[in-house]
Amino acid sequence: MSNGDIFVGEIIGTAILILFGAGVVAAVVLNDSKAKDAGWVVIAFGWGFGVLAGAYTAAPLSGGHLNPAVTIGIAVDTGDWDKVPIYIAGQMVGAILGAVLCWLTYFAQFQANADEDKAQPTLGIFSTAPAIRNPVANLVTEIIATMGLVLPILAFGLTKGLGESGTAILIVAFLVTGIGLSLGGPTGYAINPARDLGPRLTHALLPIPNKGTSDWGYAWIPVVGPLIGGALSGLIFNAAF
Amino acid sequence: MSNGDIFVGEIIGTAILILFGAGVVAAVVLNDSKAKDAGWVVIAFGWGFGVLAGAYTAAPLSGGHLNPAVTIGIAVDTGDWDKVPIYIAGQMVGAILGAVLCWLTYFAQFQANADEDKAQPTLGIFSTAPAIRNPVANLVTEIIATMGLVLPILAFGLTKGLGESGTAILIVAFLVTGIGLSLGGPTGYAINPARDLGPRLTHALLPIPNKGTSDWGYAWIPVVGPLIGGALSGLIFNAAF
Amino acid sequence: MSNGDIFVGEIIGTAILILFGAGVVAAVVLNDSKAKDAGWVVIAFGWGFGVLAGAYTAAPLSGGHLNPAVTIGIAVDTGDWDKVPIYIAGQMVGAILGAVLCWLTYFAQFQANADEDKAQPTLGIFSTAPAIRNPVANLVTEIIATMGLVLPILAFGLTKGLGESGTAILIVAFLVTGIGLSLGGPTGYAINPARDLGPRLTHALLPIPNKGTSDWGYAWIPVVGPLIGGALSGLIFNAAF
Amino acid sequence: MSNGDIFVGEIIGTAILILFGAGVVAAVVLNDSKAKDAGWVVIAFGWGFGVLAGAYTAAPLSGGHLNPAVTIGIAVDTGDWDKVPIYIAGQMVGAILGAVLCWLTYFAQFQANADEDKAQPTLGIFSTAPAIRNPVANLVTEIIATMGLVLPILAFGLTKGLGESGTAILIVAFLVTGIGLSLGGPTGYAINPARDLGPRLTHALLPIPNKGTSDWGYAWIPVVGPLIGGALSGLIFNAAF
Repeated sequence: MSNGDIFVGEIIGTAILILFGAGVVAAVVLNDSKAKDAGWVVIAFGWGFGVLAGAYTAAPLSGGHLNPAVTIGIAVDTGDWDKVPIYIAGQMVGAILGAVLCWLTYFAQFQANADEDKAQPTLGIFSTAPAIRNPVANLVTEIIATMGLVLPILAFGLTKGLGESGTAILIVAFLVTGIGLSLGGPTGYAINPARDLGPRLTHALLPIPNKGTSDWGYAWIPVVGPLIGGALSGLIFNAAF
Repeated sequence: MSNGDIFVGEIIGTAILILFGAGVVAAVVLNDSKAKDAGWVVIAFGWGFGVLAGAYTAAPLSGGHLNPAVTIGIAVDTGDWDKVPIYIAGQMVGAILGAVLCWLTYFAQFQANADEDKAQPTLGIFSTAPAIRNPVANLVTEIIATMGLVLPILAFGLTKGLGESGTAILIVAFLVTGIGLSLGGPTGYAINPARDLGPRLTHALLPIPNKGTSDWGYAWIPVVGPLIGGALSGLIFNAAF
Repeated sequence: MSNGDIFVGEIIGTAILILFGAGVVAAVVLNDSKAKDAGWVVIAFGWGFGVLAGAYTAAPLSGGHLNPAVTIGIAVDTGDWDKVPIYIAGQMVGAILGAVLCWLTYFAQFQANADEDKAQPTLGIFSTAPAIRNPVANLVTEIIATMGLVLPILAFGLTKGLGESGTAILIVAFLVTGIGLSLGGPTGYAINPARDLGPRLTHALLPIPNKGTSDWGYAWIPVVGPLIGGALSGLIFNAAF
Repeated sequence: MSNGDIFVGEIIGTAILILFGAGVVAAVVLNDSKAKDAGWVVIAFGWGFGVLAGAYTAAPLSGGHLNPAVTIGIAVDTGDWDKVPIYIAGQMVGAILGAVLCWLTYFAQFQANADEDKAQPTLGIFSTAPAIRNPVANLVTEIIATMGLVLPILAFGLTKGLGESGTAILIVAFLVTGIGLSLGGPTGYAINPARDLGPRLTHALLPIPNKGTSDWGYAWIPVVGPLIGGALSGLIFNAAF
C-alpha cells in the first residue's frame, strides 16, 4: 500500500467512522431528533456499525485501522513503525472531517441550540467525558477497554490488513459494539485517540451556539490511555501467541 | 442479466424492502400493534433487515440495487448508463407494490384509524418527514446520509452485483441499520428516492381513513438529496480508489 | 437424508426453536423474570436466534426446515412431495417437545401463577393471538408475513439444504428477526403452523395454574395462513426465477 | 495444541469473556454508569459479544472453549478426557482474572458504593442469582439452558476447534445472546461453571465497599447444572447424530 493510499484511506474511513459515531450520539441526545432518548443500545450499535462502514470502505486502500491505538498495537507486534506517522495523520484528518460532516448532518438541530432555554451542552456528541472524574481510574478504564479491542484484533491474525475479509469486518463491528455495551459505562469508551482528539478540536472551532466547554483538562486521558492499551496489547500478543 | 430479470428482480426486491420498512414503522406507531412504541432501535433494525430480505431475494435476478441512488452511483462510477432506466422503473413499481402490501398487512390497524378520537396521521409510515423543516439543511442531511450508504457499497467492490455474497448482504443490512441509528435523526433517512416517492404516491391513493396529508411540498428533498449523494459517491470513488 | 435423520433432525431443531421462541416471550411477560418487560426488540431477536440455534443444529440431519410453510414452499417449487409428511411430523413433535421444555425452564414462574391476585394469561407464551381480531385481515397478514419468510429462503438458492452454510443461517436468523420487527404487529407472526399449533396443544394439556383459554377459535388462522403463504411463495418463485 | 497454549489461551479468552460479561452487568446496574438501566437487551448482547471477543482471541491457542460445560460436552462426545483438566484450570484462572479486570474498569463506580445511602448489592455483577429461589427448578433451568448452548455447538461440527471459522464465532456469539434473551429469565443463565464460580470467588475477596453477600448457598447450582447439561448434550449428540 502506498503512502498516498494509506493517507486517503484512513481519512475516508475515519471520517465515516466519526460521522456515524458522533452522529449516533447527536441522534440520541439532541432535541428535535427522531432518535431522541433511544438509549445506550443505540449508541453502542451506532458506533459498531460506524466501524463496519468506515473500515470496509478504507480496507482496499489502507487496511482500515482508523485508530492510532490499533496502528500502535500492530507496530509493537511487528516492529515495523515506518507507516505509523502516515496512518495517524490520516486518522486525525479523517476524525476532524467526520466531526464536521456530523455537524452538517445535524445542522438544523445544532442551530436550534441557539434558544437558550433549551440549549444543551454539545461536547458529548463529539468527545468522551467520564461519569465520575477520577484521572487514574479513568485512565485505567481506557487502557483496559482498548486492550479489549486491540488484543482480539491482533489475535484475529489480521495484523496485515484488517479489511481483507467481510466476516472479519462484521466481527470487529460487533466487537466494538460489545466494548461499548460492556466497558463504556465509566468513560464513554474513547479507545481511540483520534476519535476523541479530532472531534474535540472540531468542537472547539465550530460556531455552534451555546456549545459549552470543550473540556481540555480531560483531553489527555482518551489519548494516553488508548495508546498505552494498544502498546500493551502488542506486547501481550507477542508474549502469548 | 436481461432487462426482464432486472425489472422483475428490482420489483420483488424493492417490494420486500418497503414491506419490511414501512411495516416496521407501522408496527411501532400504529395503535393496536404488538410493537407499539418499541422505539428507534426497532425501526433502524427493521429497515436494515428489510434490505437483507429484499436484496438477497433480488440478487440472482438483478443484483439487488433496490435504490436509484445506488444505481446512479454505480453508473457514475462505471460510466455505463444503459440499464439505469430499467432499474429505476423496477424500483418505483416495487416500492408502490411494497407499500400496498404493508397496508394489507396492517389493514385492521389502518381501518381502526376511522375512529376519529384515536386517528393518527399515517404518512410517516410510508414516507419521511423532517424533524425540523429546513429545506437546505434537510437536503444536506440526505446527501451526506446517502453518501454514507453508497460510498461504502462502491468500496466493497460490489459494483457488479451486490448480492453475490451472503456476507456482503449482511454487511449492507447492518450498514443501513447504522445509517438509521446514526444519521436518521434529522430527516428519517430516505437515502433512496424510490423508497420515499413510491410509498408517498401510494399513501395519496390508498383509501385509509383519516390518513392526513401526503405532504407533497417536502417530496422533492428525499428524491433530489439521495440522487446527488449517489452521484457524489460515484465521483469520489472514482477519484480516490 | 434418510427418513430417520429427517425426523430426528426436525424434532431436535424445532424443539430448540420453540424452546427459545416460547422462552423469550416467557422471559418478557412472566412476573419474576429478569427480562420482564424487556420489549418487542427482545422478542424479535429471541425468535431469530432460536431459528439460528435450531436450524444450525438440525442442518446436518434434515437441512433444518423447522416449519411446514418452508417445507411446502420447497415442495411446490421442486414438485417433490415425498418427504413432506415426515418433515411435518417431525416439526409437530418437536414443537410440542420445545413447548414442554420452555415450561420446565420457567417452571417456578409458571407455578407462581397459582397466586390468583397476580395470575397472568399464559397462552401468549405458547401461541399467537391477534391484536385486532378480524379473521380475513389476520389471515392476509399471516399469508404476507410468511411470503416474506419463504420467498427469500427460496431465492437464497437454499432449497436443497438450508443449513449448509453458516452465513445462510445467520441471514435466515436475521430475516426472521426482521419479520418479527416489521410484520409481527398485527398477529404476532406465527408464519409457521407447527410453531403455533404444537405449543397450543401443549398449553391445553399442561397443568399450569390459572393458565386461561387456549383460544381454539383462532387456531386455524396461524395454520392455514402460513400454508397458503408458503405455497404462494413456491409458485411465485417458479414463475419469476 | 500444547498444554501451555491451551492453558494460556483459555486464561486470556475466559478473562476477556468475563471482563465483557461482568462489565455489561456493571454498566447496567451501577450508579454513575453511562449505560445505567439500559435493560436486558444490552445485557444479553454484551455477554454474546464477550463470547465473540474471548473465543476469537483464544481460538488460535486453545480453540476457545471458555466454558467447562463445553469442554465436558466435547469430552463425552469424543471420549477424549486428557485435556479436560488443563482446559478447566485455564477457564477458572481466566474467570478470576476477568472479574478483577471488570472491577478495575469500574473502579470509581465500585468505590462510590462506599456511600451507604446509595450502596447497591454487587454480587449480581459477578455471579448469577435466581429470580425465584427453588433449587430443583433452578437446576433444571440451568441444565436446559446449557443444553441450548452445547448441543448446537456440537452439531456445528466444531468439536475440534470452535474458533477455526469467523462465521462460527459470530454464530456462537448470537447463540449465547439468544440464550440470554430466551432462557435467562429464571436464573440469569450461568450456563458455565467457571463464569459463575470464578467471579463469585473474586467477589468474596475483593475490597468492594458495602459489597453484600457472595451467596455461597446458591453457588453449587450454576456449577452442577451446566456440567449436567454439557454431559447430556454430549450423550444426545452421540445418539442422534
